[in-house]
Amino acid sequence: MNRLPLLTLLAASMMSAGASAATPGNDPAALAQIRDSALHSDWAYERLADLTDLVGPRLSGSAGAAAAVTQVADAMRKLGATVTLQPVKVPHWVRGQESAELVEYRGRPAGLSQRVVLTALGGSSATPAAGLTAPVVIVHSFDELKARGAEVKGRIVLFDVAFDQHMADRGLAGPAYGQGSQYRVAGPRMAAEMGAAAALVRSVGGADFRIPHTGVSGLQDGARIPAAAVSTEDAMLMSRLAARGPLTMHLTLTPQILPDADSFNVIADFPGTDKADEIVVVSGHLDSWDLATGANDDGSGVVSAMAVIDTLKKLDFRPHRTIRVIAWMNEENGTRGANAYLDANKANAGKHIAAIESDNGSGHPFGMRASVGPDAVKLFAPLQAALLPMQAGLFRREDFMGSGDLSGLERAGVPVFEPLIDSASYFNYHHTPADTLDKVDPQELRRHVAVMAATTWFLANMEQPIGRAFAAQK
Amino acid sequence: MNRLPLLTLLAASMMSAGASAATPGNDPAALAQIRDSALHSDWAYERLADLTDLVGPRLSGSAGAAAAVTQVADAMRKLGATVTLQPVKVPHWVRGQESAELVEYRGRPAGLSQRVVLTALGGSSATPAAGLTAPVVIVHSFDELKARGAEVKGRIVLFDVAFDQHMADRGLAGPAYGQGSQYRVAGPRMAAEMGAAAALVRSVGGADFRIPHTGVSGLQDGARIPAAAVSTEDAMLMSRLAARGPLTMHLTLTPQILPDADSFNVIADFPGTDKADEIVVVSGHLDSWDLATGANDDGSGVVSAMAVIDTLKKLDFRPHRTIRVIAWMNEENGTRGANAYLDANKANAGKHIAAIESDNGSGHPFGMRASVGPDAVKLFAPLQAALLPMQAGLFRREDFMGSGDLSGLERAGVPVFEPLIDSASYFNYHHTPADTLDKVDPQELRRHVAVMAATTWFLANMEQPIGRAFAAQK
Repeated sequence: MNRLPLLTLLAASMMSAGASAATPGNDPAALAQIRDSALHSDWAYERLADLTDLVGPRLSGSAGAAAAVTQVADAMRKLGATVTLQPVKVPHWVRGQESAELVEYRGRPAGLSQRVVLTALGGSSATPAAGLTAPVVIVHSFDELKARGAEVKGRIVLFDVAFDQHMADRGLAGPAYGQGSQYRVAGPRMAAEMGAAAALVRSVGGADFRIPHTGVSGLQDGARIPAAAVSTEDAMLMSRLAARGPLTMHLTLTPQILPDADSFNVIADFPGTDKADEIVVVSGHLDSWDLATGANDDGSGVVSAMAVIDTLKKLDFRPHRTIRVIAWMNEENGTRGANAYLDANKANAGKHIAAIESDNGSGHPFGMRASVGPDAVKLFAPLQAALLPMQAGLFRREDFMGSGDLSGLERAGVPVFEPLIDSASYFNYHHTPADTLDKVDPQELRRHVAVMAATTWFLANMEQPIGRAFAAQK
Repeated sequence: MNRLPLLTLLAASMMSAGASAATPGNDPAALAQIRDSALHSDWAYERLADLTDLVGPRLSGSAGAAAAVTQVADAMRKLGATVTLQPVKVPHWVRGQESAELVEYRGRPAGLSQRVVLTALGGSSATPAAGLTAPVVIVHSFDELKARGAEVKGRIVLFDVAFDQHMADRGLAGPAYGQGSQYRVAGPRMAAEMGAAAALVRSVGGADFRIPHTGVSGLQDGARIPAAAVSTEDAMLMSRLAARGPLTMHLTLTPQILPDADSFNVIADFPGTDKADEIVVVSGHLDSWDLATGANDDGSGVVSAMAVIDTLKKLDFRPHRTIRVIAWMNEENGTRGANAYLDANKANAGKHIAAIESDNGSGHPFGMRASVGPDAVKLFAPLQAALLPMQAGLFRREDFMGSGDLSGLERAGVPVFEPLIDSASYFNYHHTPADTLDKVDPQELRRHVAVMAATTWFLANMEQPIGRAFAAQK
């Protein structure tokens, strides 16, 4: 918990020196003070413990999400920020019972069945309370699904596509997730349109501990069927049994879709001095899936954004531009919070200098990636220099980020920033019951805050214009 | 699945040469043929797939255990072995519903509770169907439990003792398990005697995927209380919340203890030639816990023992002594099978030359350990030489093994043998829902069979006496 590197010990004297400073701009000493103050503090970890241990899961529409809004708003008010709760109507999907058994297969001893570990996907409809029984059709691609269209009607379709852990291991966790999650997002809808009784996907994620990975299904009203993620082990079992002969499953899922619920984005402003009308957003999403306490998805992102203000307050630093911390609601199954913010701020998009979101867990941060134009890259050299001593000095330009809550702002021209994070093990826990506080390394979380705080400060005080998002420049 | 080493390809010609041999004794060529034939075969893996995919979990008294008896007996009959089903009365404990929530803790937002992932321990009694609610007392040792005796009555006791993964990583998985499992075996009984409402233990095992590890509780009639294993993550959560203030849990466990059930040891004899009255036992246990298909605990052990006969039959080798394959029933929660065998064979113990059991999973086998006397060690040099090319040439003498099903035979003087296995990751999956077929590396299983077959053959043909078990020599 308290493995402070030598660096932060050395920084103690700098911190007290800086405590009387104000609006020091982007000089290297100020950036170093911000970095080292963050590396010296467990404020973010303590907020994360409050969020995960006291509140717990925070699926949109749940009592946990409501309690999280209150807790985060209170914490930001305590820091002296100006807090606004922006109303958002969110989907309200509630998990029910979930179980499955393979009740017919070749070689089955009389009276036996094999249990399958699975979990309903967000937006799944319910089976009858007593479950449904149907033959299983296993496919490995959308093309195979189409080719076998005649077999699908009335059956349970399983998309048995393995998560590419080797890709994740070599630094491409995000693309590996994108490749796998397309089956979770588009598969159930396609199966529904073809008349399937239910749709299953092999869990999108690494790990091999027979835990299923939930997520949003992409199902829409009018063609909604029961849909679930099967553990990797059980997808493999189903494929092995299907290789022996016909396979029949009994499936019970009883989620409910309730009327849209009232919720909020938590918006906390730390006003700028002479450029207070210009805004730098720093954010994470407050909602989580319901199976775990969402420590990494996205508790660590939210508290890192919150801790930007704590870090600056401790140093008594005031930015030129306004820093706006946002805890987004409903990233996981609707991005309604981001949509509401965009609707309210479209006319004001030009005043949004930049927007940061952290939503890739709390592995080691290597630096930042951003959708700025090529000419802006060199401007970030002082920031990189400040973050280099903690191996976080990378800066990678992207044509378009298209990430989570910020893609609307990005399309409206706001350059988007996101920490570059070691995510090799992130998808082992992502959307599972195991996304819990113990998975967050306190030291990496401190580094995460350092990256977020230094970047936010840098953006809030830059004198040179970084311009609009690259995609909006064309 | 088919990563055959060069060695086994080279062995193909030796195998055909050996196919016409019979009773070749312990010459190096015969041992090499046995080793290479085993390394060339997936017979054991196929039996393991049958056992785990078709039958599945095999807790004593269950329909799965009964189906496993039939399946294994059939497979051994197909090999031409003489199969006896030895009747055994076994405990019949059946898991029910299991859930737990932390319903009171300091800082809890109104209306929220935190879910705790747990699983009942074998022998646990039931809570009321609607659950029980009680304050939680967390202890870290038996001494602490005794010291806090006054607090225990009517409360839920949690033994929060971490599994020592570092010990497991450096080759001491067994001792690490022994150290941890004492709380599971003795803890609930002690808590019951002190008037606790229920007893919880932190899961005994590695891994960090919020899965609980079940096992036998050691509870006895007369002082039986609800008892469960909590996932590592949730034990940590409970300790963190308890550090904030009083903690109350609502606990629901509804297992049933049914009357003892009829079951069997499966005993399959491959008769010896001139010393048929002398017996070498080679074995694994057929029952498993109910959460998974018991691929490593102890499916891999059972099929490796079975495959000894398949290996010898393929080579047309006949041993001097009788080889007796035993699939033990009820190792997990009573060792009733081992007790029944011992009762029936006490007078005949002197005719049991040696007994082998494999029950530590299917990690890489490094060789054998055995409770022979010091003078016998040198006799095993030819066996070691035959196993050395696959890095399985170690031979370690023990004063007393005291393992699973064989400790009674060992006390009666029978030297006991057990493969030395890399078990560093074994306890990640042990007694969890994740002990499934995919955790077994087919190549290591082949090596496992090679070690079991070569050792069994060697013991069944040795001319020098290895004497009685070391502990019985004194």
